[in-house]
Amino acid sequence: MIAIDWGTSSFRAFRLDAEGRITERRAAPRGILTIEDGAFAEELLRQTGDWIADGETRILMSGMIGSRQGWVEAPYLACPAGPAEIAAALVKVAFDGAQVLLVPGLTHTDAAGTPEVMRGEETQIVGMLAEIGADGIACLPGSHSKWAQIAGGRMAGFATYLSGEMFAALRGHTILGRMMKDAPHDADAFARGVARSADPGHLLHHLFGVRTLGLFGQLSETQSASYLSGLLTGHEIRAALPPGGGVVHLIGTVALCKLYAAALELCGAQAVLHDEDAAARGLAMIGKDAPWT
Amino acid sequence: MIAIDWGTSSFRAFRLDAEGRITERRAAPRGILTIEDGAFAEELLRQTGDWIADGETRILMSGMIGSRQGWVEAPYLACPAGPAEIAAALVKVAFDGAQVLLVPGLTHTDAAGTPEVMRGEETQIVGMLAEIGADGIACLPGSHSKWAQIAGGRMAGFATYLSGEMFAALRGHTILGRMMKDAPHDADAFARGVARSADPGHLLHHLFGVRTLGLFGQLSETQSASYLSGLLTGHEIRAALPPGGGVVHLIGTVALCKLYAAALELCGAQAVLHDEDAAARGLAMIGKDAPWT
Repeated sequence: MIAIDWGTSSFRAFRLDAEGRITERRAAPRGILTIEDGAFAEELLRQTGDWIADGETRILMSGMIGSRQGWVEAPYLACPAGPAEIAAALVKVAFDGAQVLLVPGLTHTDAAGTPEVMRGEETQIVGMLAEIGADGIACLPGSHSKWAQIAGGRMAGFATYLSGEMFAALRGHTILGRMMKDAPHDADAFARGVARSADPGHLLHHLFGVRTLGLFGQLSETQSASYLSGLLTGHEIRAALPPGGGVVHLIGTVALCKLYAAALELCGAQAVLHDEDAAARGLAMIGKDAPWT
Repeated sequence: MIAIDWGTSSFRAFRLDAEGRITERRAAPRGILTIEDGAFAEELLRQTGDWIADGETRILMSGMIGSRQGWVEAPYLACPAGPAEIAAALVKVAFDGAQVLLVPGLTHTDAAGTPEVMRGEETQIVGMLAEIGADGIACLPGSHSKWAQIAGGRMAGFATYLSGEMFAALRGHTILGRMMKDAPHDADAFARGVARSADPGHLLHHLFGVRTLGLFGQLSETQSASYLSGLLTGHEIRAALPPGGGVVHLIGTVALCKLYAAALELCGAQAVLHDEDAAARGLAMIGKDAPWT
């Protein structure tokens, strides 16, 4: 089977053997936003045509390729959902030379009635299920961090936090950023920000402290970006962690996962880091139950 | 006496009679950032020279003119502070033709040790004291909203919330803003945002709902800016209001104060709106106790 994680900015393909092990891999900066005139079939053939010619007949894809801006829109599937529910909701794509199926994104509605969405992350989480076990917490840090509750081997629900994108907006476009100088990550300043997130008061108030600590010489221009990062990460973790903390399974870029692991420990939780091939493992697991003809 | 509110972007001058009543007023877009080469004395003479020639000998100024970027830096005065403490901490400025005194900004350190600052707002709050009474809450909404606790006729402490600047950064530089179309204020969408701020979950999570509600057709492109405004204002108010709500004295631009008044009512509090001449009244009150020679 060919497993493809096709996102907004990148394309990653894995060739899997019958046991789901990766035998070959390739990646290209050919995310869906770079594909003109909907030429997804042509791109797929360009990237994996030799594997198809070599006998592969099944292609399973996840990520933004199944969004409205992608090849075919795969409607969101409601939680709770695990590999079996996802496999039953795969969407067929017309393609000459192989069967192509799309993994749907997931949706979840919180107690107050506000909807949530993910697309692509569900496949990475499925790929971690073997290590997470039946119940646990998965976190995918990023511009829009996702926190999912795993119960009975399925995703019971999840929530998104805008922390990463907010960091970029605050740093790039507010008075806080004007006090910052580019500098290597400062672990102490990051830890101070994480600690500050536990103080009384609201994030909107804590943020102003980035400025006043600078004014009073308690935070230098080279420390304040790390402090802000710790403050936002700490707020996210304290809001998302269930009471009592616990173990959080992280997947994402290594540098970001290490920051989250440090912040989780400061918040009294434990982190388990997973490698980014979880997407391939998730596609393999969903592919086992897929309605191939 | 001449009372001057000299801020970052604007200059406002009031001529006051012996009872502190405004007899003349003028304003100019001559904030401290527009003054080149430190030519503050020349600008003051240009704006008020005729009043000085007419016999005025006392000039009291508040605002960013007393900051490091202003004429002379007036060090922050620590809370608790009222008109008497502020009058005792006025800073003299050398100027030919009249006595010039500067109002210091205020500082306050919260229980966790993080400093707070205001400069200019303290004078507006002093100008509201007669109406607030000995004890109460003052709120000055804006890019950096200030909330002050009044106790025994003095400012006991205060906190700043970055709500206004965060709204601008989120709207201008994140995925939330890309879903927004310019439109008149939508009171219903604003109220929905205020209501959402009371739901479980954190601001960082609620913000992502601006996107998902749009994706699911529950919030239109012309409503989402008002919803975001209500969400941030609601979070600020719920964090800043003491338990049980109460009466909040507002001062600022009329449009913004009306928004805050609506949000305060939705949060179970009452709003009292004050006019922007509070700065002149505050300067008159501080001027009574000032060490004029």
